[in-house]
Amino acid sequence: MIFISDNATGVCPEIMHSLQVVNEDSTIGYGNDPYTKRMELAFDTFFEKTVHAFPIAIGTAANALAVGTLCPPWGAIFCHGESHLYCSECGAPEMFTGGAKLIELTGKYAKICPEDLDLAIRKCTKGNPHVNQPAVASISQIAEAGVAYTLEEIKTLAEVAHQHDMYFHMDGARFANAVVSLGSTPAEMTWKSGVDVMSFGASKNGAMMAEAVVFFNSELVRDFEFRRKRAGHLISKMRFVSVQLETYLTNNLWYKNADNTNKMARYMRAGLAKIDGVDLVYPVDANQVFVTLSQEIKHHLRDGKYDVYSQGGVVRFVTSFNTTEQDVDDFISAVIG
Amino acid sequence: MIFISDNATGVCPEIMHSLQVVNEDSTIGYGNDPYTKRMELAFDTFFEKTVHAFPIAIGTAANALAVGTLCPPWGAIFCHGESHLYCSECGAPEMFTGGAKLIELTGKYAKICPEDLDLAIRKCTKGNPHVNQPAVASISQIAEAGVAYTLEEIKTLAEVAHQHDMYFHMDGARFANAVVSLGSTPAEMTWKSGVDVMSFGASKNGAMMAEAVVFFNSELVRDFEFRRKRAGHLISKMRFVSVQLETYLTNNLWYKNADNTNKMARYMRAGLAKIDGVDLVYPVDANQVFVTLSQEIKHHLRDGKYDVYSQGGVVRFVTSFNTTEQDVDDFISAVIG
Amino acid sequence: MIFISDNATGVCPEIMHSLQVVNEDSTIGYGNDPYTKRMELAFDTFFEKTVHAFPIAIGTAANALAVGTLCPPWGAIFCHGESHLYCSECGAPEMFTGGAKLIELTGKYAKICPEDLDLAIRKCTKGNPHVNQPAVASISQIAEAGVAYTLEEIKTLAEVAHQHDMYFHMDGARFANAVVSLGSTPAEMTWKSGVDVMSFGASKNGAMMAEAVVFFNSELVRDFEFRRKRAGHLISKMRFVSVQLETYLTNNLWYKNADNTNKMARYMRAGLAKIDGVDLVYPVDANQVFVTLSQEIKHHLRDGKYDVYSQGGVVRFVTSFNTTEQDVDDFISAVIG
Amino acid sequence: MIFISDNATGVCPEIMHSLQVVNEDSTIGYGNDPYTKRMELAFDTFFEKTVHAFPIAIGTAANALAVGTLCPPWGAIFCHGESHLYCSECGAPEMFTGGAKLIELTGKYAKICPEDLDLAIRKCTKGNPHVNQPAVASISQIAEAGVAYTLEEIKTLAEVAHQHDMYFHMDGARFANAVVSLGSTPAEMTWKSGVDVMSFGASKNGAMMAEAVVFFNSELVRDFEFRRKRAGHLISKMRFVSVQLETYLTNNLWYKNADNTNKMARYMRAGLAKIDGVDLVYPVDANQVFVTLSQEIKHHLRDGKYDVYSQGGVVRFVTSFNTTEQDVDDFISAVIG
Repeated sequence: MIFISDNATGVCPEIMHSLQVVNEDSTIGYGNDPYTKRMELAFDTFFEKTVHAFPIAIGTAANALAVGTLCPPWGAIFCHGESHLYCSECGAPEMFTGGAKLIELTGKYAKICPEDLDLAIRKCTKGNPHVNQPAVASISQIAEAGVAYTLEEIKTLAEVAHQHDMYFHMDGARFANAVVSLGSTPAEMTWKSGVDVMSFGASKNGAMMAEAVVFFNSELVRDFEFRRKRAGHLISKMRFVSVQLETYLTNNLWYKNADNTNKMARYMRAGLAKIDGVDLVYPVDANQVFVTLSQEIKHHLRDGKYDVYSQGGVVRFVTSFNTTEQDVDDFISAVIG
Repeated sequence: MIFISDNATGVCPEIMHSLQVVNEDSTIGYGNDPYTKRMELAFDTFFEKTVHAFPIAIGTAANALAVGTLCPPWGAIFCHGESHLYCSECGAPEMFTGGAKLIELTGKYAKICPEDLDLAIRKCTKGNPHVNQPAVASISQIAEAGVAYTLEEIKTLAEVAHQHDMYFHMDGARFANAVVSLGSTPAEMTWKSGVDVMSFGASKNGAMMAEAVVFFNSELVRDFEFRRKRAGHLISKMRFVSVQLETYLTNNLWYKNADNTNKMARYMRAGLAKIDGVDLVYPVDANQVFVTLSQEIKHHLRDGKYDVYSQGGVVRFVTSFNTTEQDVDDFISAVIG
Repeated sequence: MIFISDNATGVCPEIMHSLQVVNEDSTIGYGNDPYTKRMELAFDTFFEKTVHAFPIAIGTAANALAVGTLCPPWGAIFCHGESHLYCSECGAPEMFTGGAKLIELTGKYAKICPEDLDLAIRKCTKGNPHVNQPAVASISQIAEAGVAYTLEEIKTLAEVAHQHDMYFHMDGARFANAVVSLGSTPAEMTWKSGVDVMSFGASKNGAMMAEAVVFFNSELVRDFEFRRKRAGHLISKMRFVSVQLETYLTNNLWYKNADNTNKMARYMRAGLAKIDGVDLVYPVDANQVFVTLSQEIKHHLRDGKYDVYSQGGVVRFVTSFNTTEQDVDDFISAVIG
Repeated sequence: MIFISDNATGVCPEIMHSLQVVNEDSTIGYGNDPYTKRMELAFDTFFEKTVHAFPIAIGTAANALAVGTLCPPWGAIFCHGESHLYCSECGAPEMFTGGAKLIELTGKYAKICPEDLDLAIRKCTKGNPHVNQPAVASISQIAEAGVAYTLEEIKTLAEVAHQHDMYFHMDGARFANAVVSLGSTPAEMTWKSGVDVMSFGASKNGAMMAEAVVFFNSELVRDFEFRRKRAGHLISKMRFVSVQLETYLTNNLWYKNADNTNKMARYMRAGLAKIDGVDLVYPVDANQVFVTLSQEIKHHLRDGKYDVYSQGGVVRFVTSFNTTEQDVDDFISAVIG
């Protein structure tokens, strides 16, 4: 199952260890424990700012809770048609907002651009009771085609949103890969660029099940705790999720994991680029390599026990925190057949 | 934090071990993995019947997804006013049903009785478009006062529900404790007594975060998978929850844990019964001991570093899979002061 | 069908006339017309205060939109178990709030009392994310048993709500009858007694289909216009509803209609009181006479072509703006048989 | 305000008269009256089939209730981006479905085409829990650009929907205009062409406030009555809406009104076509004439007290059941200036 998806790989040793350590203790539930407190401080350090971070076990929920807090039922959320929010969550954003409308934008590499965003927002006239009201613009960093937004792009999109009195949300399911890829800091990529709220992901980069909704503006937290509980996402033994996040943020574990992941993706891309019958589809900024493959190569891979899932003819391979050069070399050999 | 709640204690060693074992493997996500398949079979064996069991990380969500599948937005759910469903989920059942009404019933020991249930149902005239339509009756087994419904009571309540063409749901957050307490089988306590769907809990009895929605009738599964995803409860690395449940159901781990828990609660009750200033409030069928305490005893306990949470003057102590007689003896000493 | 319900009688001549007058004109839709503007001013005069009044065609919607504006999805609304809001709207308040919980209170004559309200509110601990948050207390004036709250009772209930930082809502489906019955002013019965928002009814007192949501505090209007449109309650040719309300509020038409209605109910009560086999169940403050009837009398009535609907053995007769003494005399004769 | 919108004109004399007639009677509420029964029969005759027709006072609600019945919360509704459903209802379809997703299609004259529909549906893989499930395709007949779908186009679109096990909905806010325009029958344009459920409009063609949800398949009615009540759209004195519809369907009133309306639009088009500075934007199939106007002409019109509303530079004029050739001649004179 190797290379099939971010979730095929399990948990990195540091996080597995921390789960055992926390298990030696007995403490209070629902996040009123010292591990959760430490996790909160770790987020403050990570973002160089006092933030409000709420552990969530599942990524879809982090996204849906985040936009649910920012968008009223009659609001509109603007995002790319290939974003996880728009097309891979079976209507979770609609459920958590109480029925808001997601407005589909297009754009190369699954990235939206400021002109399209502005135009789409202007079609929903502010104050006109007949139309959904612009409330949130959302991007995925890394975008779903495996490409990063530059800091400049993020800033410009956030400005458009804020000019229209809207909020700017980032789906950071692969946030660490983006930070490593751009060589920026977590702060630069988020609140310094205008992100109001983000869904922070660790599960794709070495955690078992650990995400967070992070508010960079305390005023936006509002009724979040009621929303979380009501959606069934207040975790009873929360410390087991909090400690994953704390460990992930400490000693640059997030960086180490993402750095290996990204390097292995580039290494795979380099190997694939030389092979006839393989065409790279998108740039490789992080851990996903999108290609088209000849039928012959597909056969080779399946003979080599590699799974090949394609959507619209495009095949995706995903590297991981524990991918080795040997893993990639073996894979390349199987591609060649 | 010992004795404060079911979630104060961590994970039993067998389940911690299984998490490490599953982590050595790399496999596909979202439940399409061999561990989830094995968990499904373990549930079939456990219930002596082919059932449909869906792993859920959080208990509130298991309850809300279960009733959400059974009750339309204009439906009514009948349950005890002290049930978790009614008063401890911040409206999760309302959210997951799309806005159904929970009708509050009363009754000794947080248990509902057939006469009250029947009467309340009859007030919501079937087919009258002005009133919410009776859809679900729900009980907690163990009920929230720590007392078990007898098999006979369950059967009678289920019959009332079915006579009115409604479904019968069981919140089994402490199901293992109930089975051990009554000396019945899981099958007898559920589908053989008329339960249509249950929320199955393991987190309170040694798991890290592992619950399940179990359908005893395949027709009721309907759109469950869409509901689960849309609520943000389809777990990416689901195998890490599935394996907790499989381990829990295998080699009678669930029984072993619950048996110790119940025994220690009875042992605590026996110890407390002898002490002046302690009054037992409810019978102790499972792992919860409800008492009233004199002010003096409260001081003793706090001096001994035991937390004393009370609601309406009633204090609850909870034992666990790893509680020892020594733990209880120490506690009793602290009570005596 | 006479006496069966408030909606059995049609439209009073003044309102029918105004519909014809407005029809001679052609003007802009959705409430941006001069008739709606005049209606707004008429409400200001009626309530001796600048209010915000939104015409709604249907009473259930007026109630649901009102509480939907005041109560978040995780909120709780406290009302009597026999109130229209609680038991006759098939979950409309739940739909319009996005899934809030209605907490059932009891009390004589379908009226709630301050002690019960306060107690029920305190059970939902403020700030505790596990429980629905107290948001609204709602009363029906006239209450569903045909009895009026005194001004003192209204004030005390509103104070309880406000002490808990909640809003106070009045369902005024029979508001005119209440004002006439108590001899107070509309202002005294509402904002001067602490009502924040009311559902104002005219359909039961001579209009065709005309209700309003009235905000006594402009800050609470918030997103009302979006909520109304999204619920399908923004009326295209709104002037035809607005003009009904304007006419109703002008030249004391509301008073004239309600005064006759109440008088005829008292006249009916007096007539019925003398008859063996008739027992009055509740005081008659407005237009509803609740009685129990002997089987013999029920036969007499049906022979006389009067419908007899009973709920739980209690029969309700309702008078109207156009009921005459002769109508009541004929009815009494039929009762006697 | 003449020519500004369908709702600027009031009620035709036949319907005003019928309101007076029904008002002479007193009868039971909520649709259990003889007028509603007669309206139901009138719909059967109109459609040459036993249908299920439910009166609704407001068009947005008719649309939202119709699709709400056909589409689950995790479903997808496919419609044109300029359709009323998609862009003019502030999220009512989302509210009434419990949060479904509306997928925006494009196409000339605000009409969707079968190829685009099929492609968009295929992107939402059936059975995949990660994506909204295709449930409904919806068209407006007359489409929002004032152009009619041909019967052949309707049939082909319905076939695409049915091939994917979806339902086919028609927003018939201007249905009579379409029937007159195509010279077909109501039956041919609906169930004989594959329409499952329609929103039937009369308010734009001479009624005061009267629409209907019409089911051509009794199985689809399901829980409609609960949905209607819960949305606050069960009308207390329903007979006053039913009688509008009955009158509208009787003696070809619908045809007479729509025929004049369409004729006057064509007459206006012909007049405008000759004028420099006026450019026709879309074909004129029904009652809407879309043009671009020179600045000079806009001034002329405003001097002549005609309102000129434009959206994206396009101006719309709407004729009505009572528009006369003189009205149009006067208007043309004002255009010329």
